[in-house]
Amino acid sequence: MGQNSHFLDLFFNPRSVAIIGASRNKETVNYYLVSNLVNLGFPGKVYPVNPNATEIMGLKAYPKVTSIEGDVDLAVISVPARITLDIVRDCVAKKVKGITIIAGGFSETGTEGQKVQDEIHRLLRENGIRAIGPNALSPINSANNFVVGFRPNSKLPQGGLSFIFQSGLYQPRLEWLLNHFHLNMTKLIDLGNKMDITEVDALEYLAQDEDTTVIAMHLESVAGDAQKFIRILRETTPKKPVLVLKSGRTTAGAKAASSHTAAIIRSSDAVVDAALKQSGAIRVSGLDEFFDLAKAFEYLPLPRGNRVAITSYSGGEGVFTTDCAQLQGLELAELGTETHKKLSEVFPPWEIPINPFDTGVAGQFHTFDVVNRFVEAVVDDPNVDCVAVQVGIPPQLAASTTGHQLLKPYTDLIARGKPVTVWGMDPDISAGMTKDMEAHRIPFYPSAERAVRALGALWRYANLKGR
Amino acid sequence: MGQNSHFLDLFFNPRSVAIIGASRNKETVNYYLVSNLVNLGFPGKVYPVNPNATEIMGLKAYPKVTSIEGDVDLAVISVPARITLDIVRDCVAKKVKGITIIAGGFSETGTEGQKVQDEIHRLLRENGIRAIGPNALSPINSANNFVVGFRPNSKLPQGGLSFIFQSGLYQPRLEWLLNHFHLNMTKLIDLGNKMDITEVDALEYLAQDEDTTVIAMHLESVAGDAQKFIRILRETTPKKPVLVLKSGRTTAGAKAASSHTAAIIRSSDAVVDAALKQSGAIRVSGLDEFFDLAKAFEYLPLPRGNRVAITSYSGGEGVFTTDCAQLQGLELAELGTETHKKLSEVFPPWEIPINPFDTGVAGQFHTFDVVNRFVEAVVDDPNVDCVAVQVGIPPQLAASTTGHQLLKPYTDLIARGKPVTVWGMDPDISAGMTKDMEAHRIPFYPSAERAVRALGALWRYANLKGR
Repeated sequence: MGQNSHFLDLFFNPRSVAIIGASRNKETVNYYLVSNLVNLGFPGKVYPVNPNATEIMGLKAYPKVTSIEGDVDLAVISVPARITLDIVRDCVAKKVKGITIIAGGFSETGTEGQKVQDEIHRLLRENGIRAIGPNALSPINSANNFVVGFRPNSKLPQGGLSFIFQSGLYQPRLEWLLNHFHLNMTKLIDLGNKMDITEVDALEYLAQDEDTTVIAMHLESVAGDAQKFIRILRETTPKKPVLVLKSGRTTAGAKAASSHTAAIIRSSDAVVDAALKQSGAIRVSGLDEFFDLAKAFEYLPLPRGNRVAITSYSGGEGVFTTDCAQLQGLELAELGTETHKKLSEVFPPWEIPINPFDTGVAGQFHTFDVVNRFVEAVVDDPNVDCVAVQVGIPPQLAASTTGHQLLKPYTDLIARGKPVTVWGMDPDISAGMTKDMEAHRIPFYPSAERAVRALGALWRYANLKGR
Repeated sequence: MGQNSHFLDLFFNPRSVAIIGASRNKETVNYYLVSNLVNLGFPGKVYPVNPNATEIMGLKAYPKVTSIEGDVDLAVISVPARITLDIVRDCVAKKVKGITIIAGGFSETGTEGQKVQDEIHRLLRENGIRAIGPNALSPINSANNFVVGFRPNSKLPQGGLSFIFQSGLYQPRLEWLLNHFHLNMTKLIDLGNKMDITEVDALEYLAQDEDTTVIAMHLESVAGDAQKFIRILRETTPKKPVLVLKSGRTTAGAKAASSHTAAIIRSSDAVVDAALKQSGAIRVSGLDEFFDLAKAFEYLPLPRGNRVAITSYSGGEGVFTTDCAQLQGLELAELGTETHKKLSEVFPPWEIPINPFDTGVAGQFHTFDVVNRFVEAVVDDPNVDCVAVQVGIPPQLAASTTGHQLLKPYTDLIARGKPVTVWGMDPDISAGMTKDMEAHRIPFYPSAERAVRALGALWRYANLKGR
């Protein structure tokens, strides 16, 4: 961190931050703007600004940003829209280097709001100050424990995944992203109304960012230079996967997008789609897929080929999963004779097909964990590029099966460069297993179709990259 | 129940059941075959058959089925494949009326298994005894507390949904279906190898069954008379929706299907697809969709039109949800002036679009629950046919919001014949809310795309039916 000379680095690694609108009242969301930085141990200087307080969370509070003695890299403005212009004037006077404006109430609210936003933009441009927003809650940099957020965060997830959001799509999910999703995140930027900083800047920055290994981007419109955007995409995708969730893709959706951020949708969805495809971006069609693939790309190595080994609790599930695999461009691996030999130990008293492998039927005749025997058996099979496993511990083994024992063959697969995705159903089993498995970079999905879809996306990206 | 004269009614409403292979050992799955019937209060006679026991769960046990004094309507055979033929001979001698064979190890295991299965089939046919299976765990009839299952069940869900499964696809999900899914189920039949009873019989029976309002069917192959199957489908779909999940639809999947149940796949997927479409069945492409739609059709009234009102926590989510709606054939409702007036009370200090409605922005300016104000406002709007709502309780209201208060506008919508689906993210909120809402027939989904997909399916079925 800190080695990126892009202008946006200031927003992710500020040495000093003024929180304008800081609050001592835990009932308000603004409370968490300061408390998160203090509790998480953000290493920069934090200056709460509040005309009615002298101290917040043990930090000296200032009546105005101009009262702060030291330099301010970043001013986070969280005050109502109607007084934001005045605050921006203070920030200009203070010579802050960057601004993020959280409040909505600007271009998305009509002509009046647009006028105020234009005036703010003019003022900042004249003074060489860059800005995120308005109508944006960001950024987050987990490497630096820097978070602009409205909910308490006790610990930020660490990893290689960075998000770009166009609008508030992620806000209701922030809690979940940070605390429940086991997502290894490094940076997040919400662009809001994109008055100044656009998706082009964000992509350009994350493309250069060494901490970022996967970029997941939500777009409603392209506000910046579309040709530059496509050029950066094309240069970036061979190095890091870029997932794109483009909403506003239907006429009704585009109309809704235009009214809530006042963005002009300049291209038909077909044009966007073709441009994304040509630039090697991975377009996803829904939110489940967006987060499912983000997790898979961050956790897993890319497969060397498209040959998948599948195991499930029943033949019917195996058939369904095989369908999913073929629809994703994967082929059933022809498992080697060595693997057949290892697996024959767990067969029922008759010969059964080994791919897809029915651990349900095998499990009826064995007291040990046949699922793990399967995973162990395919680790060294040269015909297997990736693996999909329906997991769960048979009730009679639950007590005696330890996390480490359970996880070893999976981590062995990953160490061999073979991605593995798992799925499970029983909610009681899944909660604990999800946590353990995802802590070891084994993505856990609620259904076979989603587990296999993730493998398919890894393979298509690997294939494109290899060409 | 009991008024259906179809031969399969015997399997769902037997007056007397012999459990052959009954066990006193809680460590074995066979234990639950008897314990569930005793604990749930199945009203018929239960005869445990076990040569090494004189009593099981307080019931007299018999060494052989022929030792039972009374008549036996249904023999549930849960013994290893190798001794099943002998047991079937006993059942023939006892003149049982129906048989369900649970064990696998027959046609799906190769030539030897096929021969034994053929011999069993010949014997039963000669004696006029019908049979489910082999390789099948069923049936279940929740109206009667009759369940053939391998896991403990403390209470069966009641409702109008019936399932037909082709193979073990559902077994790993049984626990979840019965105990976690809030699925209002009446009957379930797993067909296994379909030696005798096929999907045609099952569909015919459920089509006539008064307790069944929705049929959800998983198919790998059509083993019975395909023309009759399509004819029954065509006659049934105007009366009750029939969801079909057809797996084995890719070449790899079909091959896997053929090896695990030895079924011959006689039709290409395109042919199956066309036939299903013409007969008015609702084909689903995955397991998530299968269960999502099953729930929606069982819970909800059909919409009178395709005009949807949407509310979400952010403008971005609203745009994404609007895309989903249009892709599903729904239109954004033009909300009436009365609704606008009601909603203007919850606006932020500026005018905002009312469909999709951004409760996130409105909520920043109000201390009450703006989500529910929206739902209340559209209940009486004549321009609204159905509603999609992103739910969750703002932290500051969580303690003061009671279930009843929260749910009333949703149940009002349903009472007005307007289906409503909801989605939510925060895992903590969702767990409790899912339970409350689904107990009131409001289906809760993990994402906007799934909530809206369910509404789209309801609308398309209503539209087809109305023609």
